[in-house]
Amino acid sequence: MTATDLTALLDLPPRETVARHGIRDVILYALGVGVTREGATSKEVLRFAYEKDLQVLPTMATVLASPGFWMRQPEYGIDWQRVLHAEQSTRLHNPIPVEGELISRLYVEEVFDKGPAKGAILYSRREIHCKTSGLHIATDRRATFLRGDGGRGGRTEGQPVARSLPERPCDVTLALRTRQDQALIYRLSGDYNPLHADPEVARSGGFERPILHGLCTYGVAGRALLTGLCDGDPSRLTRMDCRFSAPVYPGETIVTEIWREGAGTAAFRATALERGITVLDRGYAEHA
Amino acid sequence: MTATDLTALLDLPPRETVARHGIRDVILYALGVGVTREGATSKEVLRFAYEKDLQVLPTMATVLASPGFWMRQPEYGIDWQRVLHAEQSTRLHNPIPVEGELISRLYVEEVFDKGPAKGAILYSRREIHCKTSGLHIATDRRATFLRGDGGRGGRTEGQPVARSLPERPCDVTLALRTRQDQALIYRLSGDYNPLHADPEVARSGGFERPILHGLCTYGVAGRALLTGLCDGDPSRLTRMDCRFSAPVYPGETIVTEIWREGAGTAAFRATALERGITVLDRGYAEHA
Repeated sequence: MTATDLTALLDLPPRETVARHGIRDVILYALGVGVTREGATSKEVLRFAYEKDLQVLPTMATVLASPGFWMRQPEYGIDWQRVLHAEQSTRLHNPIPVEGELISRLYVEEVFDKGPAKGAILYSRREIHCKTSGLHIATDRRATFLRGDGGRGGRTEGQPVARSLPERPCDVTLALRTRQDQALIYRLSGDYNPLHADPEVARSGGFERPILHGLCTYGVAGRALLTGLCDGDPSRLTRMDCRFSAPVYPGETIVTEIWREGAGTAAFRATALERGITVLDRGYAEHA
Repeated sequence: MTATDLTALLDLPPRETVARHGIRDVILYALGVGVTREGATSKEVLRFAYEKDLQVLPTMATVLASPGFWMRQPEYGIDWQRVLHAEQSTRLHNPIPVEGELISRLYVEEVFDKGPAKGAILYSRREIHCKTSGLHIATDRRATFLRGDGGRGGRTEGQPVARSLPERPCDVTLALRTRQDQALIYRLSGDYNPLHADPEVARSGGFERPILHGLCTYGVAGRALLTGLCDGDPSRLTRMDCRFSAPVYPGETIVTEIWREGAGTAAFRATALERGITVLDRGYAEHA
């Protein structure tokens, strides 16, 4: 399929994934994004990492009923070794159950061509439902930068523009430390890319050591949004969008700056404190 | 059954447990006993917490195909709220596979009565085999102190005496730090006793905060034996016995002292460094 037009992907049937999860998975995800006795409050630990009165972090939608690294499948004809997760949007329609069977359906929504030298941007959407009740849990939308697939078709204009951040100082700043082994725990939630565990693979990818998963950084920032906007109540965070602008190294401190914008919306950005680098940019959140 | 003779337990049929495990479980166990970028060498992390060339820590036998807290089942008639894990012996007959289906059979081997005021000691044995090949993997023997079941029958003499430690200074000392959240990770390997996670339950049990699982401490000491006696090679550690003498608090440093005794045997003891308290006593190991 490599020679064909990328827009053919829009016509593929949705990719379905069914998966069960339970409290062990829910706690493991929470530990993976730093809900531990060293990196979180005692209240957070008891809420998200202990089965009595357990609740699920909203950002866990990104790993539930996951199709895995689907772009590697031959039917998509994507130069998968050169893809980058560029943007993430998660909308929560209902709280995630602590256990159950979920089904997700993945759609390729749009492809934008930036030309042979630059690549293409692929927008995909995953709708996640409870398999038994049919309850709609979440919508997971992603933009993926296909660096090796430019000039293979797709729209050349009209790409959505991410919101920019307010010019004024932010209203809330939260610093959350990650740990040296954050990626080792996080990857057990399903993304076993060796880039996050193997020093050799990391070096050959141009990094001094294994980097944190972008979606782990996203989960840490999600905890900051919960604390800063929702008094820790996971049912109140209903949307979280951002761009991935640089990787975090495990052990760094992620500082999330939040601008309250009224009417249940907010802007945010996250920075790796030790290097002063923006890691999540143009963040947007909705909350109750 | 509470009124009957405890020796009736010897005649119960073996309790069978079948369970699958895979690389995620193997890595999670290793993280649970401290094989992380903060508490272990890079070599240990790549060997036990990363799926490429993954190997299994020998002490993981204690949680594989586990019957759970079987003493709580009514057919045993045990005052389960007053039991204490007193001694552990693990013998490895073959390396533990990184994935597969195991079957374990649990036998009550012997009961010793210490009188109504003191309680009883129950010896149990679990034989673990590969379900498909039949290969014998491990023998897990435990002594459990039944504080509420004294005077209910059982032998009154002949209880095995644990070896004592050499008088001379030890040959190797290894200090391994545990983390504040060590118990939170370890419990995902199957022992969800709230004593190890819930501050309130810990306080009502007489502890200032949640304590580490005895078998987690055992796993940390097992890593020390691997390093000190087996050059890190898990297939070379074939036996590890000890008494549990006091709990560790997560965050403390476990110092393992090892005496080489020649002919592939060794003695060991583990201490919680910060409080200077012996936590594993009268340890005995066999290695190749």
